[in-house]
Amino acid sequence: MAQAIGATHWIIPDGYIPPTSSGELESHESVCVLNCGTEAAKLEFTIYFEDRDPIEHMEYIVPGRRTKHIRTASLSAGGESIPKGVPYAIQVTSDVPVIVQYSRLDSTQAENALMSTLGYPIR
Amino acid sequence: MAQAIGATHWIIPDGYIPPTSSGELESHESVCVLNCGTEAAKLEFTIYFEDRDPIEHMEYIVPGRRTKHIRTASLSAGGESIPKGVPYAIQVTSDVPVIVQYSRLDSTQAENALMSTLGYPIR
Amino acid sequence: MAQAIGATHWIIPDGYIPPTSSGELESHESVCVLNCGTEAAKLEFTIYFEDRDPIEHMEYIVPGRRTKHIRTASLSAGGESIPKGVPYAIQVTSDVPVIVQYSRLDSTQAENALMSTLGYPIR
Amino acid sequence: MAQAIGATHWIIPDGYIPPTSSGELESHESVCVLNCGTEAAKLEFTIYFEDRDPIEHMEYIVPGRRTKHIRTASLSAGGESIPKGVPYAIQVTSDVPVIVQYSRLDSTQAENALMSTLGYPIR
Repeated sequence: MAQAIGATHWIIPDGYIPPTSSGELESHESVCVLNCGTEAAKLEFTIYFEDRDPIEHMEYIVPGRRTKHIRTASLSAGGESIPKGVPYAIQVTSDVPVIVQYSRLDSTQAENALMSTLGYPIR
Repeated sequence: MAQAIGATHWIIPDGYIPPTSSGELESHESVCVLNCGTEAAKLEFTIYFEDRDPIEHMEYIVPGRRTKHIRTASLSAGGESIPKGVPYAIQVTSDVPVIVQYSRLDSTQAENALMSTLGYPIR
Repeated sequence: MAQAIGATHWIIPDGYIPPTSSGELESHESVCVLNCGTEAAKLEFTIYFEDRDPIEHMEYIVPGRRTKHIRTASLSAGGESIPKGVPYAIQVTSDVPVIVQYSRLDSTQAENALMSTLGYPIR
Repeated sequence: MAQAIGATHWIIPDGYIPPTSSGELESHESVCVLNCGTEAAKLEFTIYFEDRDPIEHMEYIVPGRRTKHIRTASLSAGGESIPKGVPYAIQVTSDVPVIVQYSRLDSTQAENALMSTLGYPIR
């Protein structure tokens, strides 16, 4: 069962990279992508903001039969990356179907907090 | 790809604004809305309660190709806003398709807690 | 817009009432139900366990145009209620469409932890 | 109403077993499965990684009209189990329809953090 499954277009409205960390773990977000097919998935991220134009064409490859838990802070395009401490939203498109989940670890205060949700698939 | 996507009617059954905060962050909820299209989205919130009639016609605008992470405490209609410490539920309608996620930061105790879920789209 | 919306059959696989609490808030779960229609919704809960037969026919009424955030510990049928500290799963059926979300506050340790998810609608 | 409901193929992209624990509770993940039908459900887990081939054919039985909250650390196949501290993704297939939710308790730091989401059903 190595066929591509899921959807090629996903949305996560609540993106936010906490600006500070404390304790043992660093605050971060992960966009977790599973590619069940044998071909590599070419992802493209668009980052939407409250009061400026989107950052487009952030690219990422997920090899076949692999998952990647992508730190949003690691994405960049044209020298731009996602600023910390700013509300934003995420669009992911892929050339083959994948499944997308979003999780955030917030360690602004001494102990960590977690949240997670599946992305919203566009069909 | 600047077409409007998502749904025009969303439900979040578990709304609650924690009445107290401690530590560095204030307890709050955000209704995170992404408008991928070029036209502004005119939102209308209805707030349902356990033992009184709903608050209707709370309006909010999300410009085209923008996201807004809307603090529920900032909404109002006819001089009414959502009381703290009371269980309620949220209905969001929009004149163009959008995608809706709900997140809550609870800092009632010294360290913060997070929860998040996509809204439930009505089709 | 007072028509009934959502689904009449919902599943939440991960139910658990934490047996202990500390700090200011008590550990608890809420099944949050929104009834957008004008007629009352007659709910019926079935509670499934790992190693015994289900508890059936736990009833609850959600009036029209109201939400109820139902503490699972408050449900009972035939003198039985849901035991604390035991993994279980929840089925909710309703005679009219409603929307269902599940949230848990765990204050086993000194600070609270939150999780939430929409229920899974059966169509 | 003892018929099998849900789906036979589920995906959870964000799997991670925290390597450390502190305080009273141990860090762990649960894949919570509800089998509403009368026949036992034969599950098969496939575990995908970032940089190695998947672990396949991890089996688990959920009896009829029962739920199982399955610790991912308890799964094994051919002497292999899921390593701690490594990002991975989960595929669950079942011979009869079931409903799947994923939850994680992280007690890396002194207080616990929780996250939960329904699995993504493949139809």
